Amino acid sequence: MLQLNLALIGLGTVGQGFLELLHEQRESLTTRYRLAVHVVGIATARRGAIFCLDGLDIPKVLAHKDDLTTFPAQPRLIRGLSTQTTCTRPGVDVVVEVTPTDLTTGEPAISHVRAALAAGKHVITANKGPLALAYTEMTELAAHRDVFLGFEGTVMGGTPVLRFARKGLAGCTIHEVVGIINGTTNYILTQMEAGQSYADVLAEAQRLGYAETNPAGDVEGHDAAAKLVIVANTALNAPLALSQVDRTGITGLTVTDIEAARQAGDRWKLIARARRTPDGGVIASVRPERLPLSDPLAGVSGVVNAITYYTDILGPVTITGAGAGGRATGYALLSDLIELAERG
Amino acid sequence: MLQLNLALIGLGTVGQGFLELLHEQRESLTTRYRLAVHVVGIATARRGAIFCLDGLDIPKVLAHKDDLTTFPAQPRLIRGLSTQTTCTRPGVDVVVEVTPTDLTTGEPAISHVRAALAAGKHVITANKGPLALAYTEMTELAAHRDVFLGFEGTVMGGTPVLRFARKGLAGCTIHEVVGIINGTTNYILTQMEAGQSYADVLAEAQRLGYAETNPAGDVEGHDAAAKLVIVANTALNAPLALSQVDRTGITGLTVTDIEAARQAGDRWKLIARARRTPDGGVIASVRPERLPLSDPLAGVSGVVNAITYYTDILGPVTITGAGAGGRATGYALLSDLIELAERG
Repeated sequence: MLQLNLALIGLGTVGQGFLELLHEQRESLTTRYRLAVHVVGIATARRGAIFCLDGLDIPKVLAHKDDLTTFPAQPRLIRGLSTQTTCTRPGVDVVVEVTPTDLTTGEPAISHVRAALAAGKHVITANKGPLALAYTEMTELAAHRDVFLGFEGTVMGGTPVLRFARKGLAGCTIHEVVGIINGTTNYILTQMEAGQSYADVLAEAQRLGYAETNPAGDVEGHDAAAKLVIVANTALNAPLALSQVDRTGITGLTVTDIEAARQAGDRWKLIARARRTPDGGVIASVRPERLPLSDPLAGVSGVVNAITYYTDILGPVTITGAGAGGRATGYALLSDLIELAERG
Repeated sequence: MLQLNLALIGLGTVGQGFLELLHEQRESLTTRYRLAVHVVGIATARRGAIFCLDGLDIPKVLAHKDDLTTFPAQPRLIRGLSTQTTCTRPGVDVVVEVTPTDLTTGEPAISHVRAALAAGKHVITANKGPLALAYTEMTELAAHRDVFLGFEGTVMGGTPVLRFARKGLAGCTIHEVVGIINGTTNYILTQMEAGQSYADVLAEAQRLGYAETNPAGDVEGHDAAAKLVIVANTALNAPLALSQVDRTGITGLTVTDIEAARQAGDRWKLIARARRTPDGGVIASVRPERLPLSDPLAGVSGVVNAITYYTDILGPVTITGAGAGGRATGYALLSDLIELAERG
């Protein structure tokens, strides 16, 4: 039985979804994967922090999730540790980093992940920042310290597209990845095809919680570009930096463009695409592309996401699934824990 | 470094494709997976058999693939062993079974696999017979002898749909599987939608090599039912026998049916479907279903295959890819070898 002491950094929707799943699946983790996980620390920027090597009761944590300073006293409980201190604290085996993504600086997540890896902790994160902005540094640091770095939850929520590229297609060479990896823009384009204007659909998406109040991260393609960097580095086995992605959002697309495509039997999609070049480099773009209906991605509608891997032996292989959701992303973190356990 | 002595039973298209890939990827198997494979035996029903614990040179085997009795002499070479004897021969670690599928008796594959497992050999097969007709016996025998039984190549050729259900979706519960898992019938239905008659398309499919001279295995749904049994047992974690699949082929579908669906924006597909019942059983069918275009499987055209897994945490997850091909199925066998190596 592998025993892991886990510290959680961040307690938003994803962190809560992860704790819920971890609690529900506790028994199957021990019986099926011979893995016992003890949550020993939770640290947040604004809602306090608790730490106890005897373990923290998950339902009790969830009952106090909005303000951890109200968590009841227990022997050896330490309060108020910083997120950074928690990442390197002795007795912690694995750090799960789920603070909000910042694609400009990558902080505070980059500092958390770097410190934890340098201290010899395994790290599992759903935060795109550290991988999109510092993929090579992070993965090399993990390899150097011989610890596990899991980030399945950074792309397509819980749908295991990265593990599929690494493990499911082991023995194949992937030369190109093409995806619809931003649910908000795909929802907007799908609704525009039904005749609604961009402004109306965006307002509706914001009301439904699919789009942020400031939608630039989605509609200008920043989110898709960050995910593309992570997929490309993982699947193509070649380095790609965020600054190298040729990026165009969907704000220039008009109802007229979309209607013209529809009448010709085509569809506009925000396509993220990266392919290896003969010299070992990568050419990457995020931009609206007009696809014929025969394209494997043309039928991907609404908030659904999909990635097609073009391989040497199998030709194109496509995975289609949900792109987001706190519980689905929490599941991705759990699946990384299972992979860590199987690694032994 | 894991060293494995491998015996190959059968040397048709799939066996040849496997040997080619094994030879091409020899170096990456040792460097990436720390696996050294020595082919020590090849046994066929009608083209002879060769066996040598010093190893057989793969290009030389392929040069004599049509008649192994012409394979040049080498020290310690044994000729003419039966397939059954080769399966249990001391010094063999893993048996790769790729004889033609027989869905009535499962033979000779069932006898090969049973003997090899009972002798404590790992087994990898692309033959649907043993798994479709004796799934529980085969998997229990492998577990009892603590050996590996790989059969990724039995469904969707090289596209790793079974591994995805077992590993990629670890931690999820799959409650229903729905697929288009016979390329021949999907090709026929796709062409009929374009206005061709059943008889014309079938003749064309036979000319292109997509359909057998006796097409009953495909068009009556036997092939899809066998694959469904394998997927359902693997993904649903509940037993399903071939005789329990409610099976209807596509021969009753007329051009009129297909045209009526097309005009309503629907599509006829030969759908294999299995779902768990509350009492732990499985309800399964293979039959033509009229799908709305919004269904994830409606856009799967031509010889392409796809399977949708309906899960508790992630909702539907679909994998789309090539359904067959000697080289792709050879790749599936290789991917099983890699999984065996990682199991250690």
